[in-house]
Amino acid sequence: MHSFQQLVNIYAQKFNRQHFPAEPFNLYEPADYFLSIGGKRMRPVACLMANELFGDISENTWHAADALELFHNFTLLHDDVMDNSALRRGKQTVHVRNNMNTAILSGDAMLIGAYASLNKIEASCLQQVLTIFNKTAFEVCEGQQYDMDFESRTDVSLDEYLRMITLKTSVLLACSLQIGALLGGASKYNADHLYEYGKNLGIAFQLQDDYLDCYGNVEKFGKEIGGDIKRNKKTFLLIKALETAEGETREKLKAHLSSKDENKVAKILDVFDECGVKQWAEDLKKQYAAKALSHLEKVVVTADRKKQLYDFADYLLQRDY
Amino acid sequence: MHSFQQLVNIYAQKFNRQHFPAEPFNLYEPADYFLSIGGKRMRPVACLMANELFGDISENTWHAADALELFHNFTLLHDDVMDNSALRRGKQTVHVRNNMNTAILSGDAMLIGAYASLNKIEASCLQQVLTIFNKTAFEVCEGQQYDMDFESRTDVSLDEYLRMITLKTSVLLACSLQIGALLGGASKYNADHLYEYGKNLGIAFQLQDDYLDCYGNVEKFGKEIGGDIKRNKKTFLLIKALETAEGETREKLKAHLSSKDENKVAKILDVFDECGVKQWAEDLKKQYAAKALSHLEKVVVTADRKKQLYDFADYLLQRDY
Repeated sequence: MHSFQQLVNIYAQKFNRQHFPAEPFNLYEPADYFLSIGGKRMRPVACLMANELFGDISENTWHAADALELFHNFTLLHDDVMDNSALRRGKQTVHVRNNMNTAILSGDAMLIGAYASLNKIEASCLQQVLTIFNKTAFEVCEGQQYDMDFESRTDVSLDEYLRMITLKTSVLLACSLQIGALLGGASKYNADHLYEYGKNLGIAFQLQDDYLDCYGNVEKFGKEIGGDIKRNKKTFLLIKALETAEGETREKLKAHLSSKDENKVAKILDVFDECGVKQWAEDLKKQYAAKALSHLEKVVVTADRKKQLYDFADYLLQRDY
Repeated sequence: MHSFQQLVNIYAQKFNRQHFPAEPFNLYEPADYFLSIGGKRMRPVACLMANELFGDISENTWHAADALELFHNFTLLHDDVMDNSALRRGKQTVHVRNNMNTAILSGDAMLIGAYASLNKIEASCLQQVLTIFNKTAFEVCEGQQYDMDFESRTDVSLDEYLRMITLKTSVLLACSLQIGALLGGASKYNADHLYEYGKNLGIAFQLQDDYLDCYGNVEKFGKEIGGDIKRNKKTFLLIKALETAEGETREKLKAHLSSKDENKVAKILDVFDECGVKQWAEDLKKQYAAKALSHLEKVVVTADRKKQLYDFADYLLQRDY
C-alpha cells in the first residue's frame, strides 16, 4: 500500500504527459496546455486510494483515474468560459489565451478523451463504471446550471445551496472513490459507504472554501479575502445571514449588500458576527466532516488500511482559518 | 425489412419525445427544444438500415441510433455558438433563444446523453461500439477545428478541404453505418465496406451542398444562392478556381473577391465558368458517389437487401440543380 502523499506523487508523474495528438494544433494544444497547469489531482488520487483499500491497484483503475481528471478539467475549461474567468491557478484560461471557440471545442475534445480513457477498462467492468460516471457527469452539469441560476435569484434557501454544491463539486469526488473501490474488488456495501464519505467530505471542503473566502488568512488562502462578498455571491454564509437577520440587522445587511462602500467587506462581516454566522459555519463544516468519517468507519476493511483516507480528509480540511 | 422511407417515419416517431428530465429547466429544456426542431435523422436511419441488411433490428441498434442523433445535435448546438449562427432549420439557435452559457452547457449534457444511450448497449458489444464512436467523435471535433482554421488561411488546398469535410461531416455517417452493421451481426469485411460507402456518400453530399450554394434552385435549395461566395467562404469551388485561374482571369477573381459590388456573385460565377469549375464539380461529386456505390456492391448480402441503401444514396444525392 502507498501513503496518500506517495500516490499524489506517483499519479502526478504519470499524468504529466502529452494527452492529445499534435494536430490539429489549435484543438489539442490548448487542451494539453490546460492539463499542464496543474491542480491537485485529488479525484484520481481518491480513486486510486479507494482501490488500494481492497487490493493492488488494477490497470482499470489507472484508466478510470485519468478519465476522472480529464472530466474534471473539461468542466473547469467550460466553467471558465461561462464564468468569464481570466485566470485558473494563476495562469491564463483558454478562452483568454486562445479564444472562446477554442475553449468550447477543446473542452469537448477533453470530454471525449475522458470517455476514451474509460473505454480502456476491461469489458467485464465497463458498463458498471460508465453507469456511475454518466450519472455523475449529468449531475455536475446540473450543479453548474443551478449555480448560474442562483446568480439572478434572491430567494435561494440553504437546502438549495447545499444541493447545488453537492452536485457541482461533491459527487465527482464521491464517484471517484466509488469507482476506484469497485475496480479494486469492493462489495457494493463498501463502495456505497465510500461514495457517501466522498460526498460529505466534498461538501465540507466546499463549505470551508466559502468560509475561507470570508475568514481566511490571505497568504495561506492564496486569494483575495472577501471576493464573494464584494460580488454579492450567494454563499452559504450570506444565505444564512439573510435567513437569520431580523429588524435593524436585516436592514443594515440589505443596505450593505447594495452599497459600493470600500469598507463593504468589513461591514458585512460585522453583520455576520451579529448573526453568529462564523460559529455556525464552522459547526456545519464539522458536521459534514464527521458524517464523512462515520461512513469511512463503516467500510469493512481492517482499520490500518484506512489510514490514507483519514489523511486525505485531514489534508482537505486542515486549511488554516 | 423496411423501406428507407418506412424507417425514416418509424425513427422520427420514436425519437420525437422528451429526452431529458424536467429539472434543472434551464439546462434540459433547451436541449429538448433543440432536438424538437427536427432534422432529417439521417444518421440513425442509416444505422438502422445497416443493421437490417444482416438481420432484424436489435435493441442495441435503437440505442446506438439515439446516441448518434444526440451526438450530431450536440455538434450542431456547439457549432452554432462557434459560427454565431442565429437560425437552424428556420428556428432560433439556443445561444440566441437562451444565451451562450446555456448553449455550451446544454450541449455538454447532450454529449453525455449520447454516451448514456450507448451504455444501454449489451456489455458484449459495448467496447467495440465505443471504440468506433470515440474515434469518430474526435474526428468530428478535428473537422470543425480545421473548418475554423481555414477561415483565416488563403492557401487551403483541395486535398485539405476534402479532408476537412470528411472529418466534419462524412465520418459520422460512415460510423453510423458501421456500428449498425456490426450490431446487426455483420462481419468486419462487410461493416468496413459500409463505412467506406457512408464516407464517400457523405463527401459527395457535402460537395453537392457547396455546389447548390452556387448553382442551386433557390426554391428547392431553401437557402439564399451565393451565400458562400458573398462571405468568401473557401468552398471546393473557390479553391479549384484559385488553383486553376491564370493571368487575367486570376486577377479578375482576386479583384471580385475583395470587392463589395452588388453583382459580386454573378461576377465570380462568370469566373467559375471561365475556369470550367461547374462541370468539374459535377464530375467530382459523381466520382465520390460512384465510389460509395462500389463499396456497397462489395457488401456480401443478396442484392435485393441493398435496395434501401441505394434509395438512401438517391435521396441524398438527387437534389435538383
